[in-house]
Amino acid sequence: MRKMNYQKILEIAKRRGIVYPSFEPYGGVSGFYDYGPVGKRIKENIENLIREVFIIKEGCFEVEAPTLTPEKVWIASGHVKSFSDLMVECLNCGEAYRADHLVEKHLNISCDGKSKEDIEKLIKEKEIKCPKCKGSLGEIFHYNLMFKTQIGPGKDKLTGYLRPETAQTTYLAFNRLWEVCRKRLPLGVLQIGHSFRNEISPRQGMIRLREFSQAEIQFFVDPENKFVSEKKFSEVKDIKVKLLDKEEREYELSLEEAVKKKIISLQIIAYFLGLSLKLFEDIGINPKKLKLRQHKDEERAFYSTDTWDIEFHSENFGRVELVGISDRTDYDLSAHKNLSGEDFSVTYNGKKFIPHVIEIAYGIDRPFYCVLESSYIEEDKRRYFKFPVRIAPYLAGVFPLVNKDKLPEKAQEVFKILKEEKIYCFYDDSGSIGKRYARADEVGVPFSITIDYDTLKDNTVTIRNRDTREQIRVDIKQICSYLRKS
Amino acid sequence: MRKMNYQKILEIAKRRGIVYPSFEPYGGVSGFYDYGPVGKRIKENIENLIREVFIIKEGCFEVEAPTLTPEKVWIASGHVKSFSDLMVECLNCGEAYRADHLVEKHLNISCDGKSKEDIEKLIKEKEIKCPKCKGSLGEIFHYNLMFKTQIGPGKDKLTGYLRPETAQTTYLAFNRLWEVCRKRLPLGVLQIGHSFRNEISPRQGMIRLREFSQAEIQFFVDPENKFVSEKKFSEVKDIKVKLLDKEEREYELSLEEAVKKKIISLQIIAYFLGLSLKLFEDIGINPKKLKLRQHKDEERAFYSTDTWDIEFHSENFGRVELVGISDRTDYDLSAHKNLSGEDFSVTYNGKKFIPHVIEIAYGIDRPFYCVLESSYIEEDKRRYFKFPVRIAPYLAGVFPLVNKDKLPEKAQEVFKILKEEKIYCFYDDSGSIGKRYARADEVGVPFSITIDYDTLKDNTVTIRNRDTREQIRVDIKQICSYLRKS
Repeated sequence: MRKMNYQKILEIAKRRGIVYPSFEPYGGVSGFYDYGPVGKRIKENIENLIREVFIIKEGCFEVEAPTLTPEKVWIASGHVKSFSDLMVECLNCGEAYRADHLVEKHLNISCDGKSKEDIEKLIKEKEIKCPKCKGSLGEIFHYNLMFKTQIGPGKDKLTGYLRPETAQTTYLAFNRLWEVCRKRLPLGVLQIGHSFRNEISPRQGMIRLREFSQAEIQFFVDPENKFVSEKKFSEVKDIKVKLLDKEEREYELSLEEAVKKKIISLQIIAYFLGLSLKLFEDIGINPKKLKLRQHKDEERAFYSTDTWDIEFHSENFGRVELVGISDRTDYDLSAHKNLSGEDFSVTYNGKKFIPHVIEIAYGIDRPFYCVLESSYIEEDKRRYFKFPVRIAPYLAGVFPLVNKDKLPEKAQEVFKILKEEKIYCFYDDSGSIGKRYARADEVGVPFSITIDYDTLKDNTVTIRNRDTREQIRVDIKQICSYLRKS
Repeated sequence: MRKMNYQKILEIAKRRGIVYPSFEPYGGVSGFYDYGPVGKRIKENIENLIREVFIIKEGCFEVEAPTLTPEKVWIASGHVKSFSDLMVECLNCGEAYRADHLVEKHLNISCDGKSKEDIEKLIKEKEIKCPKCKGSLGEIFHYNLMFKTQIGPGKDKLTGYLRPETAQTTYLAFNRLWEVCRKRLPLGVLQIGHSFRNEISPRQGMIRLREFSQAEIQFFVDPENKFVSEKKFSEVKDIKVKLLDKEEREYELSLEEAVKKKIISLQIIAYFLGLSLKLFEDIGINPKKLKLRQHKDEERAFYSTDTWDIEFHSENFGRVELVGISDRTDYDLSAHKNLSGEDFSVTYNGKKFIPHVIEIAYGIDRPFYCVLESSYIEEDKRRYFKFPVRIAPYLAGVFPLVNKDKLPEKAQEVFKILKEEKIYCFYDDSGSIGKRYARADEVGVPFSITIDYDTLKDNTVTIRNRDTREQIRVDIKQICSYLRKS
């Protein structure tokens, strides 16, 4: 049943242009997906909601940096040295595996935080073989997950990497941003864009992509002032959450209690967890399936004082990380200072220091998938996505009841009015009205507008609500304001 | 004087967070620029206007594909074989040059359409040396401009390239898109995203980037039906344009006349040229500086029947190509059919054929720069960018007249109202009002809202217009509608 839902979602996603595997004519390459026309509109809507929350509401700035980046950036950040997965190859057939995933699958355990030696030992002791040909496995080694290339020709050529995260490309501009924001803290900087991870063997559809979208916010703060105002915190403090702390203790309490009991170490982390929970609910993710998970000591980056993820419990994929919120301290700015010689310290409130960073790192593709899984409804014979109005690919479909008697002309008039009001909508005149409703439902369009014989008489149309299936009559002049206030 | 303006624009751009070179702490890498907070908002506004024109008005669909792409795609498209520039290296100091640029600069001629042999001959005959050390130059060779990398590990690894254009990644999904759009022509597909070009030696700031943004529309048409309706064409037909045809003849006439006189071979190309001219004017590019230039026979791709660029005549950079509009015929779909075996033919109106493609390929970074150059105004002691309201980074700034007597609290109230209406605006309370106006002007903010002592009495604010410097009083309740209708 569960898997079946996934298959149905995937089938609709491919057939109706939500998402589909990239490069299909050439057989596809694992870890790459295209957003089709419907999916791209939903993705845009999600990204724009993140902008509203972080730029307009939280006062952050947005930047856009290149994805191709010279090597020094990733030497400083530590990625050249340690952004790797443990890999093992079959000595017989040559198949490459991620060693921890192989062990997890074979022994049905979690390898979170296990070292190379631990995993090596498990493979030897449990005599794990190649799942494909049963051949023996070779030595485990660190495989760097960054895509490498050369920038420029000849003697001046540089090694470049495709960025594995947006964060470092934001940090590099810190001194410019400090001037631009008029030298005040906190300073929040959002970057939305593609990042890359040369996964060893991605096999989980949209959940593990080699090229993916991120929305990462670097929130620069005074190290002695890592909290938001009580007024701000009061917006989220009563949200009840499920938590799993680093000792694997489970809790169900409010964010305020979680901070008071020091389960979440920093109030500002709790604030952004709350803001993210609201955001996920607004884009249509089922809040009942969300859990806050603290990184274990051995899993957390050594410089971070505390890191929390929000995870979605997917029917198909199990735990899916949607956002990571982390106190990155002054680690990154200091690392770039040490390698580049550029000073990133600021003088603020009479003190000189390198700002600390609270990072809020959203994936886009994973939340997108979780929206699909959360919104998919089967009801009688209907299948539809109950996308929130703000997220739906189109606000409305426009249908002439029949293709004669001047109804198409009138329907085109209505379509034109909506377009002039910059409303994303579509026109459909093929098949029966029932079929057109079903098609609109299938991609989660909230409103269907039908132009019928009464329209010619009294200038009203029928607007059908996707969720309630109720139909009301609205004057053509009122359509836009009706749709907008919904 | 001209160069001085460029220096001033660049100085403001860097200081105020419009654009600045990437990776500055590491000395920068030519061909890479960041969009800062102000520039990113303008860029978003430009991209969203393209969406409005092509998705809402023209009924195109938008897709998003990966930028990292397996080799076969670029073998089929011809890029692996011929997407290259002629390169020459100095035998003494090793410096790499683009051979045509070297000849152009040295001899003050154009190399458009010149062959490898032509350029080789010119370098020998005119005894062109290394501009840096006067050393002799080596042999000329083709240097492929795609960034190359490896996808995946071990025996299954693939060669991958960063895409040099979005177009091919749109074509690959054609069969899916054909189903999604309900099998009708014309079918327009927009893709906005990053593309890459490993330039030999980029030295023109934002005009020649190694990583850049594009908005490319692939307009699939019936090969026997390459025109838009007369009604549609009438929207643009009277636009007067300056044209330079492939024989370098100059004309100044309307688009309709250009089609009638067969200067522009296809009416649909003339339509999209007209649509693009309107778009460029809407984003704030000076229309007087735009010229339509037809590709010469030797410059045009061999499969294209006609190609036109719109060029901006920049004070600093000379001719800058903003968009290329080209009849690509069925070349690309046929090439992918031949290599992949996938059939891209459709059955439509009783005929079976592979659709032809009219491509409208916009750069984003170059139009962005041309907006800056077109909008920059020096007037008395003022310097400002006269961005169109739609394009400006913020719609308004909110200023308390003084930081006491409850004015900041009132100003924050106004700021909150604007934010709740999802208006991009900012709050500034530092320095004199005059300085705050100047700062807002400098980044082209159209409206400045000042909260003063009268506000406390009658709930009205002063709204100052950037361009006219006129100030009017508006009731707080009316601010949003006043700003929105401007």
